[in-house]
Amino acid sequence: MPSTVAPVQEMQTRERIVCTAARLMQRQGYEGTGIKLIAREAKATLGSVYHFFPGGKKELALTAIAFSEKEFGDLLASSLATENDPGAAMQACANTLAEYLAADGWADGCPVTATALETLDDPDMRAACEHAFAHWRGIVSEALVAGGVGEQDAQDLAYTVISVLEGAELTAQVARSPKALEVAGRHLVRLLGTYR
Amino acid sequence: MPSTVAPVQEMQTRERIVCTAARLMQRQGYEGTGIKLIAREAKATLGSVYHFFPGGKKELALTAIAFSEKEFGDLLASSLATENDPGAAMQACANTLAEYLAADGWADGCPVTATALETLDDPDMRAACEHAFAHWRGIVSEALVAGGVGEQDAQDLAYTVISVLEGAELTAQVARSPKALEVAGRHLVRLLGTYR
Repeated sequence: MPSTVAPVQEMQTRERIVCTAARLMQRQGYEGTGIKLIAREAKATLGSVYHFFPGGKKELALTAIAFSEKEFGDLLASSLATENDPGAAMQACANTLAEYLAADGWADGCPVTATALETLDDPDMRAACEHAFAHWRGIVSEALVAGGVGEQDAQDLAYTVISVLEGAELTAQVARSPKALEVAGRHLVRLLGTYR
Repeated sequence: MPSTVAPVQEMQTRERIVCTAARLMQRQGYEGTGIKLIAREAKATLGSVYHFFPGGKKELALTAIAFSEKEFGDLLASSLATENDPGAAMQACANTLAEYLAADGWADGCPVTATALETLDDPDMRAACEHAFAHWRGIVSEALVAGGVGEQDAQDLAYTVISVLEGAELTAQVARSPKALEVAGRHLVRLLGTYR
C-alpha cells in the first residue's frame, strides 16, 4: 500500500515547493514568479502545487514569506550570537550577510523586499511582510537587551539595524561589492557605542 | 505646417511616457510593468512608445531609471539644504521622506529598489541602478563635507545614510507608519555626533 509512505513524500514535495517559491520570490519578486515556474523548478506537477495550495499562487506566496521569515530570522540570531558586545554582534551580522551575498554571486539578498514592494496593495501580503520585519526586529532587540542595552533603546535600535542591513544588502547587490555592509557594520559599532 | 509644433508635442509625449514608466516601476517593479500598460497610463499609443524607444521596454526602463535618479537626487539635495548641521540635515531628509510617503498612501518609496532587485542579472539595468545609488551617495557626501565632516568619513557615511533611508522607507511602507524613518533620523543625528 503506497499510502503508508505518502505522508512523508507529500511533506517533502510540499517543502520543496515552498522553498522553491521562497527562493524565486527572493530573486525576482512576486509578479515575475509564476506558479508554473515554481512547479517546474521544484520538480513538482502543477496538480501537486494546487493540491497543497488550493488558494493558488497567493496562498503559496504567504507560506513562502513565513518560510523566509524563519530562515532569515535563524541566520540573524545565529550570527548575532557569535559576539557578546552588542556593537560587535551587529557588525558580525553585517559581515555574515556580506559573505553570504558574495558566495552566491550577489543574487540572494533580503528574501521579502522585492515581494513586499510589489504587493503593498494586498493587505494579506503586506501583513505577512510586516510580520517578517517585526520578527527580525524582535531578534535584534533581544540580542541588544542581552548585551545590556535598555528595552526602549533596543526596540528603537532594532528598527535602524534592520533598516540599514536591508538597504546595505540592496546596495551591495547592485554594486556587487561588500562595501555598504562593511561600512554599515562599522557605523553600527559607533552608534551602539553612544549608548554606553 | 504641423511640423513646426511637432518637436514640442513629441517632447511632451516622450516625457509623459518616461515619467509614467518611472512611476509604474517604482510601484510595481520592472517585471510587472508591461509596455502596453505604460502606453495606456501615459495616454500614448504603443506606436509612439516604440517611436521614442525603438529598443522597447528595456531602453525605456533605462531612461526611466535615469529620470528617477535625477528626481530623487533633487529631493535629497533640497531636503538636505534645509539645515546647516549635518546631523540635522540627515534627520530633515528622513522626515521629508516620511511626509512624502504618508501623503501618497505609502505607495511611492525608493524609485529603483524593486526594479534593481528584479534585474540584477542584466548588466545594463544593474549599471543604471548602481549609477543612481552612487549619485545619491555623492549628494549626501557633499552635504556632509559642506557641514564640516572629513572627505573620507563623508564618503563612508553616505553609504550608511542611503542604506538606512532605503531600508527605513521599505519598513515604513510595509508598516504604513513613519516610525522607521523617524527613528533612522534620530540615529543619524547620534552617529554624526560621533564625528565632531
